[in-house]
Amino acid sequence: MRNKASMLRELFSRPGVIRLMGAHNALGAKIAERAGFDGIWSSGFELSASYCVPDAGIITMSEQLAAAESINFAIGVPVVADCDTGYGDVDNVIHMVRRFEAAGIAGVCIEDSQFPKLNSFVRGRHKLVSVATFVEKLRAAKSAQTNPDFMVIARVQALIAGGDSQEALERGAAYAAAGVDAVLIHSNETIPRKLIETLKQWKSEVPLVAIPTMYFQITAAELAEFGVKMIIYANQGLRSAIKAMEETCAEILSSGSAASVESRIASLADVFEIQGVSQLRCAEPEAVSGEPKTKPARGGGET
Amino acid sequence: MRNKASMLRELFSRPGVIRLMGAHNALGAKIAERAGFDGIWSSGFELSASYCVPDAGIITMSEQLAAAESINFAIGVPVVADCDTGYGDVDNVIHMVRRFEAAGIAGVCIEDSQFPKLNSFVRGRHKLVSVATFVEKLRAAKSAQTNPDFMVIARVQALIAGGDSQEALERGAAYAAAGVDAVLIHSNETIPRKLIETLKQWKSEVPLVAIPTMYFQITAAELAEFGVKMIIYANQGLRSAIKAMEETCAEILSSGSAASVESRIASLADVFEIQGVSQLRCAEPEAVSGEPKTKPARGGGET
Amino acid sequence: MRNKASMLRELFSRPGVIRLMGAHNALGAKIAERAGFDGIWSSGFELSASYCVPDAGIITMSEQLAAAESINFAIGVPVVADCDTGYGDVDNVIHMVRRFEAAGIAGVCIEDSQFPKLNSFVRGRHKLVSVATFVEKLRAAKSAQTNPDFMVIARVQALIAGGDSQEALERGAAYAAAGVDAVLIHSNETIPRKLIETLKQWKSEVPLVAIPTMYFQITAAELAEFGVKMIIYANQGLRSAIKAMEETCAEILSSGSAASVESRIASLADVFEIQGVSQLRCAEPEAVSGEPKTKPARGGGET
Amino acid sequence: MRNKASMLRELFSRPGVIRLMGAHNALGAKIAERAGFDGIWSSGFELSASYCVPDAGIITMSEQLAAAESINFAIGVPVVADCDTGYGDVDNVIHMVRRFEAAGIAGVCIEDSQFPKLNSFVRGRHKLVSVATFVEKLRAAKSAQTNPDFMVIARVQALIAGGDSQEALERGAAYAAAGVDAVLIHSNETIPRKLIETLKQWKSEVPLVAIPTMYFQITAAELAEFGVKMIIYANQGLRSAIKAMEETCAEILSSGSAASVESRIASLADVFEIQGVSQLRCAEPEAVSGEPKTKPARGGGET
Repeated sequence: MRNKASMLRELFSRPGVIRLMGAHNALGAKIAERAGFDGIWSSGFELSASYCVPDAGIITMSEQLAAAESINFAIGVPVVADCDTGYGDVDNVIHMVRRFEAAGIAGVCIEDSQFPKLNSFVRGRHKLVSVATFVEKLRAAKSAQTNPDFMVIARVQALIAGGDSQEALERGAAYAAAGVDAVLIHSNETIPRKLIETLKQWKSEVPLVAIPTMYFQITAAELAEFGVKMIIYANQGLRSAIKAMEETCAEILSSGSAASVESRIASLADVFEIQGVSQLRCAEPEAVSGEPKTKPARGGGET
Repeated sequence: MRNKASMLRELFSRPGVIRLMGAHNALGAKIAERAGFDGIWSSGFELSASYCVPDAGIITMSEQLAAAESINFAIGVPVVADCDTGYGDVDNVIHMVRRFEAAGIAGVCIEDSQFPKLNSFVRGRHKLVSVATFVEKLRAAKSAQTNPDFMVIARVQALIAGGDSQEALERGAAYAAAGVDAVLIHSNETIPRKLIETLKQWKSEVPLVAIPTMYFQITAAELAEFGVKMIIYANQGLRSAIKAMEETCAEILSSGSAASVESRIASLADVFEIQGVSQLRCAEPEAVSGEPKTKPARGGGET
Repeated sequence: MRNKASMLRELFSRPGVIRLMGAHNALGAKIAERAGFDGIWSSGFELSASYCVPDAGIITMSEQLAAAESINFAIGVPVVADCDTGYGDVDNVIHMVRRFEAAGIAGVCIEDSQFPKLNSFVRGRHKLVSVATFVEKLRAAKSAQTNPDFMVIARVQALIAGGDSQEALERGAAYAAAGVDAVLIHSNETIPRKLIETLKQWKSEVPLVAIPTMYFQITAAELAEFGVKMIIYANQGLRSAIKAMEETCAEILSSGSAASVESRIASLADVFEIQGVSQLRCAEPEAVSGEPKTKPARGGGET
Repeated sequence: MRNKASMLRELFSRPGVIRLMGAHNALGAKIAERAGFDGIWSSGFELSASYCVPDAGIITMSEQLAAAESINFAIGVPVVADCDTGYGDVDNVIHMVRRFEAAGIAGVCIEDSQFPKLNSFVRGRHKLVSVATFVEKLRAAKSAQTNPDFMVIARVQALIAGGDSQEALERGAAYAAAGVDAVLIHSNETIPRKLIETLKQWKSEVPLVAIPTMYFQITAAELAEFGVKMIIYANQGLRSAIKAMEETCAEILSSGSAASVESRIASLADVFEIQGVSQLRCAEPEAVSGEPKTKPARGGGET
C-alpha cells in the first residue's frame, strides 16, 4: 500500500486547493474518490450519525480508528481523521497518533475544545482548553509520530465558542508555532465575516483548512483567495444519503412496492461495480444476473 | 430493552403483511423505523457494500454481528439478521445462533448455498448444499437457541441456482419440517413466474418470506395474496443513498461549492434529531446554532 | 440467557460475602467460574495490560464493552464491568450504561477520578471531581438503566488521592444517597488503616465493596466483619499468568525445547475442555489425538 | 513503524534457527519479545481458547486480524498470523492477504484442511482439500500481496489427516512450486518419526517450519539439523497461563485471601513496566505508589 501521508504532503506542495469529502465508511469514501476528490475526511459527525448517537464525544477512539482504517483500506487517496479533542489528555493524544499512524492514516485533526466535545453546530456548552494546554497536546502529537510525513492539523474552535477573530488568530498562531502541519479555523457563521477576517490576517506559512458547512455559499475559489489550502466538505454526503433513504422508505411504504423508487436509485450493477464484484474469481465477467448482456443497464428492469 | 424476538413473533401472529427494510447501520435502520417499517433486515449485501467488498462470504460473522447489534441498540423494532450460509458448518451455525441471540437479535436467516456464498444477483458459481446437509444446519440452529421466541428463517436458493419450482418446493418443505419458523423462497426473476408458481403450491403452515429486489414491480398486497407473510425491501435504502452521494459529490466538485446541494439534502437539524441531540445534557433545547430560534429551519439558515 | 443483573442482585440479598475474580477475557473468566467465584470483575487494569498500554484512560469504552461482552457470553455467573470514570461526562455515562446493560452486563462501577483516570497504584496525578459532579453522573447512570436489577457501583478514590477517612465517608455517603447500589472504597494502603476506619464508620444500608490488591494480607472473613459485602480480587489472575508466561518463555529459549515446561503447564486436554471441544459436532468424543483413549491425560504425553 | 515483513525476510536470510512464540494478545507477545523470541505466532488455537470457543473455524478473520494487529502494534519483532484455511475459498484468501498486509503483519500461514478446520490435535474430521485447490489458494495469496517481502507460509496437514510421509512431501513440494515462502509440515506424533522422515527427504530450497507441540522433546538444534529454519512454540505460553490462573483462583478461594499467591505472581511494578507506565506524562518517574522509592520491589507489600 502506498504511503498515504506522503501523498497528502504532496497535495499540500502542489498548486491549487485540496478538496476532501467527508465519509463514515468505505462506501462513501469510494464514491467520493471515484467522483474525483483528493482525499477523505473521516468525519466524527458522520460516524456519530451512522451510530445514531450525538456528536458529543460519545463515539470512541476505537470506533473512529476502525472507521478510518476501513475507509483507508478501500481507497487510493489519503484519509485525514477527525479526532475530536484527541480523546482525553496528552497521554491519550500520544496513543491516538501512534494508532492512526500505524493504521496507515495520512493525518489527524484535533480541536481545542474541552473533552468531551460538542458538535460545533449544536447550541450548548462550547468551552475551550487554554492555549498552553492545547499546545502541549499538539507538541505531544508531533513528537509521537514516526513517519515524518504524517500530518497533524490543529482545529481552532474560538469562533464556535463565541470568541472573536483576534482570539482565533492568536490560537492559530500558537498552534502553528507548536509545529503543526496545518491550521483549521472553524466557524458556524452562515455569512463567515469573522472567519474571513481571521483568514485575511493569517501570517504564518502553515497552511489553512476550512469546513464550509454553515457558510456553504462560498466557493472553493473564494476560499483559496483568502488563503485556504484545503477545503473539507464534511457531511453533505451523509446528509444527501439521509434525505434519499427517508424518501425511499416513505415511497415504498406508501406505494406498496419498490417499483417507483427503482428508477432513481443506483442499479445493482452500480453497486457491484463499487464493490469490485468483477474481480471475484467465483463470478462471471458479466456479473449481474437477469440483465441484458449487452448493457449493464439499470437495476433489474426488464423493460 | 424489550424482548425483540417476542415482538417479531407477535408481528407474525397478527393479521397483515410484515414489512422489513434493509439496513447496514443504525442510521439507516432508524430512518426506516421512523418511516414506519415493522422491523429491520440487517443485510449482508448492504454491509458488504458499506465495506466496499463483494457480497461473497467475505464479510465475517463478527462484522455482521457488530452491525446487527449496533442497529438493534438504536431502534425499538426487531432486527432479522442475514447470516449468509451460517458462516461454515453445523458448529459455526450453533455458535452463530448463540451469539446473535445473546446480542438481542430477534431472528436470523440462513441460506442453502455452499460456503462461501455469492450474491444472488451476481452471475457465477451458485451451488447448493444437499437438503440433508442444510436440514442438519437448521436443526442445529433451532436446538442452539435458548429464547423460545428467537426465529430461524430458512432461505431457499433453488431458483437462484437454476432449479425449478419443484426443487424450491421440496427444499422449502424439508426445511419447514426441520422446524424453522419461516421459509424464504428467493428469486432473481424480473417477472417472478417460477416464484409465484412455488408460492401458490406452498402447503405448510410455516409462513413465507419474500425479497422483491429483481421483481420490484410486485406490490405487498399481491405478495400477500400469494401467501407471503413478510416482505423484505433488502437494499433500496443503500442504493438510494449511493445515488444521492454520487450526485452530491459530483455537484460539489463541478459547481465549486455545496450551495446547490444544500436545498436537497437533510438539514443539520434533521441529523441532530435522528441522533437524539436534544436528549444531551450538555446541549441547549434549541440545538442548532446559527439558526433562528423560532424555527428549526433547513441546515445553515436562509440568511 | 439468564438475567445476569437479577443473579447479581440475588447474590447481594443472600448471606455471606460475594467474591469476584478479575479477568480481561473469556478464558480467565471461565477459569474463575470453574474455580467457584461468584462473578467476574471485567477489569480495566487487566484489559489495559492485555493491550500493553498503561491503565490511564487509554482503553476505550468500546474495548471494555467488547471484553465484558465476550466474558459474559462465555460464562454463567454475572459480570461487573470496571468502567473507569464513565468515559467522560454525564452524557457519556448515560450512553455507557445503556450499552453495558444492553450487552447483558450485570452492573458497572465508576469512580470519582477526573477523566482520564490514572491507575490507583501508580504515583502521579490523582485528582477527583467534586462530589456534586460525581453525584450528577451517578444519578444519570441510575436514570439510564431500564432493567431495574442492573447495578451501579460508585467507587470512592478519596484515599487514593491523599484524602482521609472523613472525606471517603462523606463521598461514599453522598453517592449512596444518590441512589447507587453499592459503594466501593478503594485504598492503596498496604496496611489499610484508613480504609478500615472508613468501613467501621459506614452507616448507610448501601452495601460496601473492597479490592484488596495492596492490602492483600486481609482475609475475606475479616473484610466481611468490617461490613464488606463484595470482594474483588482484581488482577491476581493476570499477574500469575504474566509470571508463568515469563518463566515459560525463558525456559524454552534457554533449554532449547518445550520439554521441561510441558509437565507444569495445562495439557491440551485441559484447554480443549475449557473451550468446550467435546460439544463440537465435528469432533469425536475422545477429543485429544495422540492421547491414550482410556484417560484424557496430560498434554501430549509420549506413551 | 518498521517494515516487519522485511525484518522477517532478514531473519530467514541470516544463519541459525528462527524461534517464534505463540500469543493471542499484545501482553503475551510483549513478554515473548522481552524474553528474546525472534517473532510472534498469532495463534488461532490460543485466540480460540481466549474466547472460550473450540479451535474449529469459529474464530473469524476479523477476530484474528484484530488480535494480530493489536499484537503487532505493541512489539518491535515481526508477527506471523495463523490464518487457518484462509477463511474460505480463493476470494477469501485474496481479501485476507490484503487485510493482513495492510495491517502491517509480516506474513500469514494457511493450511490445506477443508474449511472449517478442526484443531490438529482434536480427534475428528480432518479432511484435506485437493493439491490443485490449495495450490490455487496459494497462488492467489502470493498474487494479492503488494509488499514483495510479505511472506506466505503453506501448512501441510497430511500427517494430521492420516497421510504418510510421501503425501506430505508431495503436497509440500507442490506448494513450494506454487511460490510460497516457507512450508510448514505439521504433525501430531509424540515421537515424530513420519515428520522426520519427511523433513529428511525435503529437496526444495523453500525453507521449512515446524511446530513441536506434541513432539515437545525435540530440541531446536535437532530440528535445525533436520533442515527446519523456523520453529513455532505455538501455545505453551497460553497453557502456562491457564495453569497459573487455575492455581491462583483455587488458592484465593481456599485460603480466603490473596496473601499466599502474592509472592509468586508478577508484582504491580512488573505489570506497569510491561505496560509502559513510566512513559506516561501524567505519572511520576517512580510509578508504584505504596512502594519504597529506593527499589521497585514486589507488588505492594513492604511488610
